[in-house]
Amino acid sequence: MREISSGEVLSLCKRRGFIYPAYEIYGGIAGLYDYGPLGTALKSNIIELWRRIYALQEGFVEIDGDNVGPEAVFKASGHVDSFADLSVTCKACGESFRADHLARGLHPNPDSLTREELQKLLRDNNRCQCNGELADVEEFNLMFKTKIGPGNGRTGYLRPETAQSIFVNYTNLYRHCRERLPFGCIQVGRGFRNEISPRQGVIRLREFNMMEAELFVDPEDKTWPRYAIIKDNKVRLVPNEGEQEVETTYGEAVERGIIGNQTLAYFMWVTYDFLTSAGIDPARLRFRQHLKTEMAHYASDCWDAEALISFGWTEMVGIADRGCWDLSRHMEHSKADLTAFKRFEGPKDVEREVVRPKFGALGPKFKGAAGDIKKQLEAMDVSAVHDGLVTVVVEGQNVNLDSTYYEVARVKEKVNGVKVVPHVIEPSHGLDRILYSCLEHAYGEKEDGYVTLSLRPLVAPIKVGVFPLMSKDGMEEVARALDIALREEGIATYYDDSGSIGRRYARMDEAGTPWCVTVDYDTLDKGDVTIRDRDTAEQVRVSADDVVAFVKERLRRKLSL
Amino acid sequence: MREISSGEVLSLCKRRGFIYPAYEIYGGIAGLYDYGPLGTALKSNIIELWRRIYALQEGFVEIDGDNVGPEAVFKASGHVDSFADLSVTCKACGESFRADHLARGLHPNPDSLTREELQKLLRDNNRCQCNGELADVEEFNLMFKTKIGPGNGRTGYLRPETAQSIFVNYTNLYRHCRERLPFGCIQVGRGFRNEISPRQGVIRLREFNMMEAELFVDPEDKTWPRYAIIKDNKVRLVPNEGEQEVETTYGEAVERGIIGNQTLAYFMWVTYDFLTSAGIDPARLRFRQHLKTEMAHYASDCWDAEALISFGWTEMVGIADRGCWDLSRHMEHSKADLTAFKRFEGPKDVEREVVRPKFGALGPKFKGAAGDIKKQLEAMDVSAVHDGLVTVVVEGQNVNLDSTYYEVARVKEKVNGVKVVPHVIEPSHGLDRILYSCLEHAYGEKEDGYVTLSLRPLVAPIKVGVFPLMSKDGMEEVARALDIALREEGIATYYDDSGSIGRRYARMDEAGTPWCVTVDYDTLDKGDVTIRDRDTAEQVRVSADDVVAFVKERLRRKLSL
Repeated sequence: MREISSGEVLSLCKRRGFIYPAYEIYGGIAGLYDYGPLGTALKSNIIELWRRIYALQEGFVEIDGDNVGPEAVFKASGHVDSFADLSVTCKACGESFRADHLARGLHPNPDSLTREELQKLLRDNNRCQCNGELADVEEFNLMFKTKIGPGNGRTGYLRPETAQSIFVNYTNLYRHCRERLPFGCIQVGRGFRNEISPRQGVIRLREFNMMEAELFVDPEDKTWPRYAIIKDNKVRLVPNEGEQEVETTYGEAVERGIIGNQTLAYFMWVTYDFLTSAGIDPARLRFRQHLKTEMAHYASDCWDAEALISFGWTEMVGIADRGCWDLSRHMEHSKADLTAFKRFEGPKDVEREVVRPKFGALGPKFKGAAGDIKKQLEAMDVSAVHDGLVTVVVEGQNVNLDSTYYEVARVKEKVNGVKVVPHVIEPSHGLDRILYSCLEHAYGEKEDGYVTLSLRPLVAPIKVGVFPLMSKDGMEEVARALDIALREEGIATYYDDSGSIGRRYARMDEAGTPWCVTVDYDTLDKGDVTIRDRDTAEQVRVSADDVVAFVKERLRRKLSL
Repeated sequence: MREISSGEVLSLCKRRGFIYPAYEIYGGIAGLYDYGPLGTALKSNIIELWRRIYALQEGFVEIDGDNVGPEAVFKASGHVDSFADLSVTCKACGESFRADHLARGLHPNPDSLTREELQKLLRDNNRCQCNGELADVEEFNLMFKTKIGPGNGRTGYLRPETAQSIFVNYTNLYRHCRERLPFGCIQVGRGFRNEISPRQGVIRLREFNMMEAELFVDPEDKTWPRYAIIKDNKVRLVPNEGEQEVETTYGEAVERGIIGNQTLAYFMWVTYDFLTSAGIDPARLRFRQHLKTEMAHYASDCWDAEALISFGWTEMVGIADRGCWDLSRHMEHSKADLTAFKRFEGPKDVEREVVRPKFGALGPKFKGAAGDIKKQLEAMDVSAVHDGLVTVVVEGQNVNLDSTYYEVARVKEKVNGVKVVPHVIEPSHGLDRILYSCLEHAYGEKEDGYVTLSLRPLVAPIKVGVFPLMSKDGMEEVARALDIALREEGIATYYDDSGSIGRRYARMDEAGTPWCVTVDYDTLDKGDVTIRDRDTAEQVRVSADDVVAFVKERLRRKLSL
């Protein structure tokens, strides 16, 4: 089959009602697309498949948070301070560009340049397409900003990822999951990035759909109970050392330290299982490890599930071990206690150091204030001792005390457990990219231009085309009854009685409908119908009464349990 | 059962994981709530029920549009110019209020006052709670505003309703639905209103979930094929004349002109069927017609489905005949052709007036330009004739021509149909309110404080609690297998092996789980289990092999076809 272009796929998308450029009657807006009837159904079906895996199979809970959030949240997450691209605007025509994109060809790796370096490079070498002069290179924060409430209001942002809604609800979720690690939470929702100049269709959007899973685990235990079932499966990896693609098993990759831990490996397999079930071609799917330079500084390991599409190898899912970064930051900024209590098997004797006041010295020196100073010292952690001094507050003034007034003593205590900040393993899915890649991988065009979308039946927007051969002699009634029987079972159908059967097949092939059922004269005599398979074009005769069972059987998907 | 307060319900919501105040660790934000695990599942189930009715039963298509939109769209929809509340801010403490809310008690109907009148009233009579002086009353547009793109960008807004995404996609949808009226489109998604000072929990939110249906119909034909099946059903109405509640039938209400047309009546019934299936108590549900003063000026009829909850009678769904307003506005603003072609049964002879050039006069007068003027005149509609003159453009200049140069002639033509701007019937659902009201109507508390949520099985977040009596002697294995068998069928379960069976029942009753299955010693002998019904507390013994069928049977819902 010949190579296809994203233009051909997007043109089919528009023609068949998968994806429409948004606000087209008002000239459209780059980076905004709407899902049409078939796209919305395809999207819902992909989400259902994903929920089936994460909720029903893996036991994650699901929440649904807000798109609008206050500044404090995104201060804590780091997005206010460092979620920016460098932008440059033409002084003449006013168009804006990503500075690193304009510098391509001028430098081997423009991403690595500072603002000043990029500015110099562009000033010396580049002008706008309109031949206008370029203004200064500026940092542009990619969050959409707004105000919450009247007057000057509070600054708010549209969330750049759904994950923060899960982190800020950590305490609620921990309680809901009965205060035990590990537990996982998923969310399906919108993310927003005010891209400077989005291209590449639905691959880079200003408003996009995400499916994120956050798994909270014991920092000291990243084994996974079900790891054993998947460890011998093959996997195609591009590790960050060597850049050579290797085919190995999950088990071997964990043992050799290529994949950081069992839990990460297990969710890479879950990702593979999900993506290929949704319709990504296994031959065009791999996992690429983030380069050390590319990885967020807090992540200890990160892999992208990449699919090969007309834009090249493209990230579909990022699977990262984010350590304690997210919860620690929110603890620091909100002062809330976002820990888990790790209970020991039985109470343990623990020795620890404490600060102990010397009341004999404090009394004479501080008189009436001595009681209060004693309390301050008792509440103090040993980490508060610096160079033999501790600081207390006496009548609003800081006072340093030396070891005349306190001592550091070792005490033995019985404790039942310890507080830990859970680590987070995050599989984060770009739903629009996955959907689009399923369409590209399903797209087939014959030499005569005949297009078939071989979408996986489980995600296909329409499962069955129902046709009466002609709308007479009782064929219509039988077809209508069959159509209703299918819909009763929640199976999406398309009833079509116009044009030749060949044209009706063609419409359904282009819409990715796996089966077409035709009611003909034989049906009236013998009670059977023709079921035609989209991919093989084979036709079988099946009793009309068995059509629902035929379709349901083929839409079944076992859980991996 | 005693009356319950919204506080009790919201407290259960938080405790059980239905609804959490958003961003609570950062102090929260009024009007923003997140759905917890049970709330998210309940919400998904309500959406699925709704889709089943609108997509599978009524044949509507579904789209999914963007939350962020450009100013032009909301100029056309009227939201930029007239989607505002009057706000007043305290000069001392900075708090903002809705001016009409502050004026309650000072005037019988503060909604009806102008900005100036409200200002005078508040100045004379009111101060802030902090005793501070109030600033001027100001118009505050309720849309969240943002910028799309870098630099000064383009002004964008978060959509205040999902409907506009459907209207701007009209042409795509009309084509998708094979250019025939009527056709319907639904959408599930977020809407945003930057409320001045939201109260009332999830009833008035700054970010909310909507389910909107837009039905495009022939303006001259508002009959509905399936009206006959529903017209004899009873309905409880509060018509806008008299304000007296009447119980009648849909059919009688249409005949007597109380409900505007058949289509509106049919979708009022669909709304009733949906709401009561979701769990709104029929005894606390009615339809109230908008008062003439309350109705949008373009709507020809509008009914609110209202449920009685602790906040009083509250709108759940608005069902309006919006006429041609939406599409006409977008035609005017975008210049796109948003009409439908209404094909006649056969070609019709139509007489119409046309502007016809008199070339004999144009040639001598305008020489070389005469050909172009002829074309302009031929393309002209007769409505362009004013006071016997028409205006043409000659070498960039407007020139008025009198009837020396043209005539208005009557011509006969064969035409196959006529363009019409479809009318829109809109059932618009406030999903959060519906979900909350289902919770309130399901809430039951015994004298000893024991809480049961009698959610309808179809929407209940967890369908089955699965309990081994004890985790030993093989009971755990049987219970686990049963749990998996249920989840294989897509049925959400909660496996619980901790605490007494009574405590486990209590947890499930509070979560609204309709059935609990217990595996005990008898199961090991005879293979049967106990199924306990939440609402009757009755227990039946059923073969473990039949549990899946038992539950599936009870979750079935026929389409009304």
